[in-house]
Amino acid sequence: MTLRIIHERAHLREALDAHRLDGRTIGVVPTMGALHEGHLSLVRAAKREADVVVVTIFVNPTQFGPNEDFEKYPRALAQDAALVAAQGADLVFSPAVEEMYPKGEQTRVRVTELSLGLCGAHRPGHFEGVLTVVAKFFSLIGAGVYFFGEKDYQQLRVIERMARDLLFPVRIVGCPIVRQEDGLALSSRNVYLSQHERQVALGLSAGLFGARSAYALGERHVGELVRVAQRIINEHARDGIALQVEYLEIRDADDLAEAIADATGLITPRERKVVLLVAARLGSTRLIDNILLE
Amino acid sequence: MTLRIIHERAHLREALDAHRLDGRTIGVVPTMGALHEGHLSLVRAAKREADVVVVTIFVNPTQFGPNEDFEKYPRALAQDAALVAAQGADLVFSPAVEEMYPKGEQTRVRVTELSLGLCGAHRPGHFEGVLTVVAKFFSLIGAGVYFFGEKDYQQLRVIERMARDLLFPVRIVGCPIVRQEDGLALSSRNVYLSQHERQVALGLSAGLFGARSAYALGERHVGELVRVAQRIINEHARDGIALQVEYLEIRDADDLAEAIADATGLITPRERKVVLLVAARLGSTRLIDNILLE
Repeated sequence: MTLRIIHERAHLREALDAHRLDGRTIGVVPTMGALHEGHLSLVRAAKREADVVVVTIFVNPTQFGPNEDFEKYPRALAQDAALVAAQGADLVFSPAVEEMYPKGEQTRVRVTELSLGLCGAHRPGHFEGVLTVVAKFFSLIGAGVYFFGEKDYQQLRVIERMARDLLFPVRIVGCPIVRQEDGLALSSRNVYLSQHERQVALGLSAGLFGARSAYALGERHVGELVRVAQRIINEHARDGIALQVEYLEIRDADDLAEAIADATGLITPRERKVVLLVAARLGSTRLIDNILLE
Repeated sequence: MTLRIIHERAHLREALDAHRLDGRTIGVVPTMGALHEGHLSLVRAAKREADVVVVTIFVNPTQFGPNEDFEKYPRALAQDAALVAAQGADLVFSPAVEEMYPKGEQTRVRVTELSLGLCGAHRPGHFEGVLTVVAKFFSLIGAGVYFFGEKDYQQLRVIERMARDLLFPVRIVGCPIVRQEDGLALSSRNVYLSQHERQVALGLSAGLFGARSAYALGERHVGELVRVAQRIINEHARDGIALQVEYLEIRDADDLAEAIADATGLITPRERKVVLLVAARLGSTRLIDNILLE
């Protein structure tokens, strides 16, 4: 089957209804486009689990803050379509903003506790925008398996919670972060980085790897694990270019709870699954990364 | 077909999937139970438009304020089931709270502008609770025609907006208010009224009818129309029992806009479809009513 590019909701519904009538299962990869190997790994995962693979490409305005990069966010539909076609995707849904946000729209979806802290604290309204558009995709596309990357770790947890709470007939699958050989997590925003900044940005993944090594060697003190990561991040500064850390925190990997340590700062229980999450700014570029400590 | 009463989501999905496989359309009447003739008129409307009629009976905790009547709200499942069975309903879905609000739930749906003012101003969080549970029913039950009463006029408009904005594959049908012969709009909360209070409560419908008559005679001054209704409401006070009006307002019938009059207070354009809405307290009972002026 060749890739079909659809821009209108009604056409998407028709196409999906036909597939469902034929008994085919639907796999969905929601994206904002500017696709990289991380997204393509989601398409391959969808291909393995579903009969029909839909990739949505939509730069969602409501998840950008007023001073964020909505306008300059990279857009490359033709190239994106070629990339997902090569992976065997069946449909690309690339709607105009008015298709997703009907005239006079004023409905928002939010998840309360899980959206507090981390990116939620630094990007007010961000998760509400994400959840609103993802709920729209769930309603529009309907039953299926939906694939999201673990790089946006808090986003994944927030979306899982929303899907469960609103009783959508969907299954959410989180897929591992894809990194370049030197460790940098793939991101559509990496194109903003100069060569110089890119070297400094490696501090993020290196810091996370360092903390993971300390954890593997038995370190369980939250403060010490964070210090290991922060030290490595700092060491990557050069020529006056440095990562400005927004947060660097260890949280419970399932519910993102902050309370994971005893009074002495040791993770309890020792085998608790935790995640070390980081967000940092490099000039005007905001980067995030995370790693499971288990 | 005889009525089937279902308490679990999984069973409801199975039953509906079977109907859909057989090509039957689904009509849904969401209620909080304590059914009266108003609800039954919705069931009959659903029966006319859909092959399978589902009545949901769920007293939704999130739409009650902390000092409202969630605990004492009338519950009568067996009687309700008998009533809807007599109208030809096929399924009653009566879930426990944990079925609709999974453990750890923290997702909420809101509509911004339409929820301001009127009941939204007097019952903080009310529409968020309504929208959240209705979105859950849309997700769980899926494509279909959903019937709501026009007595909850703002609720109807807010739900329509949410359904459209979140791209749910549903059609919303509003059905006319059902009144007793003396004019009192049917409400599950009417059981709270003493005989004495009931006579005073008639001021609401009488006031609305009075304003409608004035409108029919050509009156277009917003303030005068409201005064006509308020005067009649006041005249129904007796023996120290009086309706305490929370709001008595004329709004645009479609978007509930407040700005419907010119600088002199006259409705513009003269043929604008408007609605006169009222909410009032009688002792601890809160009553609402409305009427279209067209």
